[in-house]
Amino acid sequence: MSMVLVTGGRGFIGTNLTNELRSRGHDVWTCDIVQGEDPQHVKADCGSYQQMDALLRKHTFDFVYHLAAEYGRWNGEDHYENLWHTNVIGTKHMLRLQQQHRFKMVFFSSAEVYGDYDGLMSEDVMDRLPIKQMNDYAISKWAGELQCLNHAEMFGTETVRVRPVGCYGPHEYYSTYRGVIPIFVYRSLTGQPFTVHAGHRRIFDYVEDTCRTFANIMDNFLAGEVYNVGSQEDWDITIEELAEIVLEETGASRDLVDLKGEEGFTTRVKIVDFSKARRDLSHKAKIDIHEGVRTYVEWVRRAYDL
Amino acid sequence: MSMVLVTGGRGFIGTNLTNELRSRGHDVWTCDIVQGEDPQHVKADCGSYQQMDALLRKHTFDFVYHLAAEYGRWNGEDHYENLWHTNVIGTKHMLRLQQQHRFKMVFFSSAEVYGDYDGLMSEDVMDRLPIKQMNDYAISKWAGELQCLNHAEMFGTETVRVRPVGCYGPHEYYSTYRGVIPIFVYRSLTGQPFTVHAGHRRIFDYVEDTCRTFANIMDNFLAGEVYNVGSQEDWDITIEELAEIVLEETGASRDLVDLKGEEGFTTRVKIVDFSKARRDLSHKAKIDIHEGVRTYVEWVRRAYDL
Repeated sequence: MSMVLVTGGRGFIGTNLTNELRSRGHDVWTCDIVQGEDPQHVKADCGSYQQMDALLRKHTFDFVYHLAAEYGRWNGEDHYENLWHTNVIGTKHMLRLQQQHRFKMVFFSSAEVYGDYDGLMSEDVMDRLPIKQMNDYAISKWAGELQCLNHAEMFGTETVRVRPVGCYGPHEYYSTYRGVIPIFVYRSLTGQPFTVHAGHRRIFDYVEDTCRTFANIMDNFLAGEVYNVGSQEDWDITIEELAEIVLEETGASRDLVDLKGEEGFTTRVKIVDFSKARRDLSHKAKIDIHEGVRTYVEWVRRAYDL
Repeated sequence: MSMVLVTGGRGFIGTNLTNELRSRGHDVWTCDIVQGEDPQHVKADCGSYQQMDALLRKHTFDFVYHLAAEYGRWNGEDHYENLWHTNVIGTKHMLRLQQQHRFKMVFFSSAEVYGDYDGLMSEDVMDRLPIKQMNDYAISKWAGELQCLNHAEMFGTETVRVRPVGCYGPHEYYSTYRGVIPIFVYRSLTGQPFTVHAGHRRIFDYVEDTCRTFANIMDNFLAGEVYNVGSQEDWDITIEELAEIVLEETGASRDLVDLKGEEGFTTRVKIVDFSKARRDLSHKAKIDIHEGVRTYVEWVRRAYDL
């Protein structure tokens, strides 16, 4: 039983992770830039030192899952002021408060830090190769990782970094900035056309699987470590295959699919190594893409009354 | 004769660069977060899109030297909100405005991007090795470089990046966040003790030499290129030797020197390669450390009436 804070706790992963942590008996508080009905939710923006300072003076946390972030490449390009404010200034605030309050922190980075690297993405790629991030979102996440490392070096703060890959599932609301699964599903269910780029392979990871792994970090907290967290290496599929699954699960018409060639400024194939999370965090994916999309489609129907 | 804007034009390098560019007959405007008496100076914060947009709508510039930045490692640690706001959000604003107005830009990075790399710092080290920046200032400068590269790739904007090394000289006012030369000189002239860390070798570069090279970029603007700009490879000296020169030029008492061992979190030796700037930008240092410190001491005496 630990006292845990989840920043960005009203967001997609935050909501699922909070559920998982509470199911294990932890005393979980959440904060976010939006209000919430939960009695243990606090409206607090991690980009505001004052707001986070007030929260962290009020309660003593053993662990902080620092999820609060502007998410996604095009969201980051369109809203770069918010992006840098939340993802980097906000992370620095958390590190400064960690110095004072000494909680253990889990920092949420992204597999986007690997840039256009097209080999096997093991965590130590970042220690072996000169990777350049290709957009502000990715740069901000790598900057956050470096801030965590430098603070650990200078002040002995204890942080584990995670790099989620292709996470999807319930509580991910639709917007055009979201990943392909929410976009395909929502647009299928609302009869709106959507673009499918041929020639890309991706790994998708059902959020309940991911959140079990994230929750396991508390049981084997190895400060300084970094983990890719996705499903499993051989669960990669093409975007065309994904579209087929979505059409099947939603019953939408194939006419909605606007098939295009390769998308610019993103890699064709991503191959990610999850062996470290399996070793240290008992990572194990249970829900495959068919079952995951089916469950997500049900959730989207309920969430939007479709 | 070109129309040129120097952001951060009231700062140390900005003031010297403006003088150099005007001496070559260019029509130079400056902006900065502070006011100024010059009729071609505009108060405008590059961290504010609105202010920079207004300025760039009013005048059409051929070149923008984007110098505006929060400078220095400890300044960046103490004022990290300002740092990220100016250095990264500000640079993104400039890149967005560059997309619209198509000026050629010179982005001022820093040799701090090389982190604790202790080999020969050639520009392509960043393309060959997995370098980690060691503080927020350095991270923000590397983030700015990546933003320039990504914008060039996506929108065809034309930018040259420079990485100054150890620049000092007139118009560098004293604060505790400044480099060793202003600190040693000002404290010597005001009878205040100063710390000298033994065991470090550094290259120093007189600002008028540096600014001639920066001004030369306009004559041979090779978009996408990046240059180290310092003095010359064999002008490195120890910090103890530098302190001796300052004592000699100021006539201060040796008692002011507080000799300590190696400083933490910084490299012992920096060896920098300036051959690319010599090749493309006719880089040539003329003023050695003795003459440079002498001139700077005279300027500090006048500036502070000492």
